[in-house]
Amino acid sequence: MRITALAGGVGGARFLRGLIAATAPSAGSEPAQITVVGNVGDDMTMHGLRICPDLDTVMYTLGDGIHEGQGWGRAGETFGVADELKEYGVGPDWFTLGDKDIATHLVRTQMLGAGYPLSAVTEALCTRWKLPVRLLPSTDERVETHVVIDDAEAPGGRRAVHFQEYWVRMHAPDARAVVSVGVEDSKPAPGVLAAIAEADVIVLPPSNPVVSIGTILQIPGMRQAVADAEAPVVGLSPIVGGGPVRGMADKVLEAVGVEVSAAAVAKHYGADLLDGWLVDVDADRAAVEEVEAAGIACRAVPLMMSSPEATQAMAQAALDLAGEIAARSARPAV
Amino acid sequence: MRITALAGGVGGARFLRGLIAATAPSAGSEPAQITVVGNVGDDMTMHGLRICPDLDTVMYTLGDGIHEGQGWGRAGETFGVADELKEYGVGPDWFTLGDKDIATHLVRTQMLGAGYPLSAVTEALCTRWKLPVRLLPSTDERVETHVVIDDAEAPGGRRAVHFQEYWVRMHAPDARAVVSVGVEDSKPAPGVLAAIAEADVIVLPPSNPVVSIGTILQIPGMRQAVADAEAPVVGLSPIVGGGPVRGMADKVLEAVGVEVSAAAVAKHYGADLLDGWLVDVDADRAAVEEVEAAGIACRAVPLMMSSPEATQAMAQAALDLAGEIAARSARPAV
Repeated sequence: MRITALAGGVGGARFLRGLIAATAPSAGSEPAQITVVGNVGDDMTMHGLRICPDLDTVMYTLGDGIHEGQGWGRAGETFGVADELKEYGVGPDWFTLGDKDIATHLVRTQMLGAGYPLSAVTEALCTRWKLPVRLLPSTDERVETHVVIDDAEAPGGRRAVHFQEYWVRMHAPDARAVVSVGVEDSKPAPGVLAAIAEADVIVLPPSNPVVSIGTILQIPGMRQAVADAEAPVVGLSPIVGGGPVRGMADKVLEAVGVEVSAAAVAKHYGADLLDGWLVDVDADRAAVEEVEAAGIACRAVPLMMSSPEATQAMAQAALDLAGEIAARSARPAV
Repeated sequence: MRITALAGGVGGARFLRGLIAATAPSAGSEPAQITVVGNVGDDMTMHGLRICPDLDTVMYTLGDGIHEGQGWGRAGETFGVADELKEYGVGPDWFTLGDKDIATHLVRTQMLGAGYPLSAVTEALCTRWKLPVRLLPSTDERVETHVVIDDAEAPGGRRAVHFQEYWVRMHAPDARAVVSVGVEDSKPAPGVLAAIAEADVIVLPPSNPVVSIGTILQIPGMRQAVADAEAPVVGLSPIVGGGPVRGMADKVLEAVGVEVSAAAVAKHYGADLLDGWLVDVDADRAAVEEVEAAGIACRAVPLMMSSPEATQAMAQAALDLAGEIAARSARPAV
């Protein structure tokens, strides 16, 4: 079974662990080849280092190098470089790079500088981590998510900040718009379109539908490829009970004019893209009807990734729904 | 009193401490403005980071950040980044960058990438260290010292290696030649020629006469500027008793055809450049006559930097000899 997942950072990476567990030979399931198409909209350059937070969170998580407590960054991290950078008085004080993490960025920055595309760099980095999935950046081009916020002192009363500044530094104030800088000149990275076209199942984890999966889908050709894929496309709602499980999806959904609800996110993705949708069984059972009315198969299951077992069950529910959808479409029309 | 010193790495930095002590107000001496012209021939790029070992050794030493035991690198250094780079399997295993040190290189690399010349970068870095001297790179251009060694497998039986590889990795095998790559296209960094022309004393610390001070003097215009300077030029022999006090001066002196002796180094610098020379009182008293016969004033004093006091006394001896030479030249010829 070939599974292709579009993923953001912490939530996406955690879900992928569940997906790997659900498709492990020991789970009695058909062994799966999983391709992860990672978001690059959060990427930035700091201290001259090229940083890919979402790709790295997936890599560290699936490579068992993640700081389990915070969900991002490296376990056993140290901050020798960052402490010294502070002594030099350079760089922003709201983003601290760990030493282990810096090693990743040094390898990446040097390879990018030597002319390798991000996809080749990512593959080289992943070799060390022996990932049980193939991790592809959504694009080799630079696509950077900027968020438009109110700023009384800015001309016109608004200004755009890089997503990392919006989220990490400013803790997600109200947003007016989300802009993917450079996206119109980007294209899917090598292997991405094939992984979508050849998949048996396409999964949208409960990642941010605007700044993570939304940014991936904005890359020219990407949304159409997912919509045109033979495979069922099943997503999991990142909104539970009218709010994000983690992160700032509420703020960026409002910025793009989408209601903060499990059903509204499904309809935002659209029935042309999405074949199936999972909502939380406790908080959003009532959304099932609304989603199905929009032409998207919907099931209510537990959607809190509170344990590895719960996460695996979520992934299994997504695969089950995909199986249902595939079986239904294979059945001759009555 | 304005003192300009040409300096290499560990030995030069230690001597400069003595010079600072000798000219401190508490030493009863005239307060001095010291300009250090640092060697850049050891510089290299590793993991995409621009590294200036000699400039950094001077900066860390005079900024009280040096690892006192080894004479280079940072006190209290950690190796989080380097350990991770090893996990990625990248980079040479014979050169390990510490985390604190990497912060310096990140700032430097980013500033150089932004277009600042090395002299501006060095000034910015030194601001943090509150150096009691002005540290100037000898040149803003890239000048890299390569050493030609025997290699039976190389075409012609010889090959050139970067000085750091020669010294740190190979531990200084016999050398056939020393080449300063790029030196012919370099020029003294801003402020260097003025510091030489306006100095009251010019000092050549007991740094390597070939790969440290020799490389500085090879920069077009540099040797002539020192030779033409009004100030007395006084050097301290890095060779004591026929061998280098530290380092591999013996190997590189042989490579350039100079005998490994205190007198031969003085004559290698030449009477046109050098006005005074200090040799070790215990090992090289006999060299005084030979050096003086070559037209260079010579004194025999203790030349082992075995303690701060001993080093200060060496610096004082150099200043005293410079004073003698200045007084003599100011006296009307008989």
